Amino acid sequence: MRLQDLGEFGLINHLTRHLPSYDDTVVVGVGDDAAVFRAAAGSFMLITCDMLVEGRHFLRDKISPQDLGYKALAVSLSDIAAMGGLPRHAVIAVGWPKYVNLEYTEKLYSGIREAAASYGVNILGGDTVKAPQLVLDVTVVGESGRPPVTRTGARPGDVLAVTGRLGASAAGLALLLAGETGQGLPPEVANRLVGAHVRPFPRVRAGSALAEAGATAMIDISDGLASEVNHICNGSGTGAAVYADRLPVDNDTRWAAEKLQRDWLQWALFGGEDYELLVALPDSAVAAARQALACLEVEFTIIGEVTEQKHGIQIVAGKETVPLTPGGYDHFRGDFGD
Amino acid sequence: MRLQDLGEFGLINHLTRHLPSYDDTVVVGVGDDAAVFRAAAGSFMLITCDMLVEGRHFLRDKISPQDLGYKALAVSLSDIAAMGGLPRHAVIAVGWPKYVNLEYTEKLYSGIREAAASYGVNILGGDTVKAPQLVLDVTVVGESGRPPVTRTGARPGDVLAVTGRLGASAAGLALLLAGETGQGLPPEVANRLVGAHVRPFPRVRAGSALAEAGATAMIDISDGLASEVNHICNGSGTGAAVYADRLPVDNDTRWAAEKLQRDWLQWALFGGEDYELLVALPDSAVAAARQALACLEVEFTIIGEVTEQKHGIQIVAGKETVPLTPGGYDHFRGDFGD
Repeated sequence: MRLQDLGEFGLINHLTRHLPSYDDTVVVGVGDDAAVFRAAAGSFMLITCDMLVEGRHFLRDKISPQDLGYKALAVSLSDIAAMGGLPRHAVIAVGWPKYVNLEYTEKLYSGIREAAASYGVNILGGDTVKAPQLVLDVTVVGESGRPPVTRTGARPGDVLAVTGRLGASAAGLALLLAGETGQGLPPEVANRLVGAHVRPFPRVRAGSALAEAGATAMIDISDGLASEVNHICNGSGTGAAVYADRLPVDNDTRWAAEKLQRDWLQWALFGGEDYELLVALPDSAVAAARQALACLEVEFTIIGEVTEQKHGIQIVAGKETVPLTPGGYDHFRGDFGD
Repeated sequence: MRLQDLGEFGLINHLTRHLPSYDDTVVVGVGDDAAVFRAAAGSFMLITCDMLVEGRHFLRDKISPQDLGYKALAVSLSDIAAMGGLPRHAVIAVGWPKYVNLEYTEKLYSGIREAAASYGVNILGGDTVKAPQLVLDVTVVGESGRPPVTRTGARPGDVLAVTGRLGASAAGLALLLAGETGQGLPPEVANRLVGAHVRPFPRVRAGSALAEAGATAMIDISDGLASEVNHICNGSGTGAAVYADRLPVDNDTRWAAEKLQRDWLQWALFGGEDYELLVALPDSAVAAARQALACLEVEFTIIGEVTEQKHGIQIVAGKETVPLTPGGYDHFRGDFGD
């Protein structure tokens, strides 16, 4: 069935039929001029949005509609996580091109619903328009009972740590772009790396636990570790030292780098889209942070420390110490996925 | 200067330099993973978003960047107004095409700032990406101390009323699309009609006053009066009778219709983008509503009444009574601006 035959309101009704039921903070959901919800008394409200444009942030033949829907929500959840908040509500605007059919829209929404259900997010509505190519903009509202963890609170002497592993998303993207699935890697390895790219895990519970443990600054790793370290240091007025040999890069990622003749350290530093958290916290908070993340079965790795601004932002690789410039993925400068 | 040379973060810094200062509910504004604000205790929170796509919702050579920025925010403010809420915060995602230069982005943001300042809205952030054509998605969060006015509360016997005048926006669009400015109308008349199209006034204070006065259902007129009457009736399980000779259509609009050989009644019923409010309210609330809107210098016109569902949704034009079908602007079916 063509979207044109269904019409705007027909499509909205169709896509919102199967939304999970709302929790009791939702007063008015999909279908009115605006949605209405109640916030917990005294809480901090968080808001963020991310726009994904076909051909720019994703290639339609390289990601399934389910994964795309899931990821579109996940990347915004990650921003809420990076403030230590819990995502609560989302509105989603979609520009649908003519060449997309009803089945595609349903699959995309099933991915959105899956992410929403996994993270306890109410899909409150959005907008549906025609566009020359697929465009998704997801706005997520979160809540936090404690003051948010910004990028600006790191202090010299804090440790720098990351959740999970780095570079797997970049490895997955490289495998996708290389075309032939696997590049000689065992299928389960290739699938895991591609999965890291198309189905990132926003670190929602981990972000909340790190905030609780006493994080002084936090950011999600969307543009590459190097870029995020620079954001925290520039925001906090500090320097940093990051140790290349401490970066948590798993063997699958190193193996893919070898097969594709690429550099896993480049992926870990500049690859982006890991959606792990980079966090600064005082020594005194490390034990609590480590324990809390162990309970969540999320890895926690100290990769360096925050220094005085005058020492600059450095990466220590073997005997060399060199400036760690952002070099991450910049949407206006870089090409697709680089 | 080309946007490519500035880079994503450079552009964000550039555009957010001149944002008006935040009110004291904003804890973290532009520049972190998410923005943070505090809500008034016990209030209802409202959220809505609207996506505008170049070539679909606007033609770049027919609207100035200032007006486009202003309108992009205004249409979402109108949705908050239609629930009786006050808009408080906005996040804005923009997809910028290569052919847009820095001057254009600045002008567009000056229009956004102007609307934000006029309506007391904090611009809390958003997203900036590259796109093949200009895409804007504005999400607005509002607040209300009282329960929201939905589309579903109209009762038989309620009167139906509208704020302001109808059809001027459609007349303005028709003048723009006809190409030669004015079509023989005095310049001030043509400018006023074009202004109604490119700079709509969201009825924020009026919406709040109507809710306070006891509105049972309310909706903003974005897709044409006929479509909105149908939304309220379908949502409320009622019928309606609308009287064509009561529709507030001003002489400028009638004059433009004559010059362009178009039908002003069609513009008033199906033209869309008036961003006035359609409201249902009991007889007992009419005096209070009328007085409150008079204080705001906003016209208030009773155009019909809510009836039992079995009577259908009808328009009475002279001696004829015919069904009032939506026929409004449907983004998937209609062509641009129709």
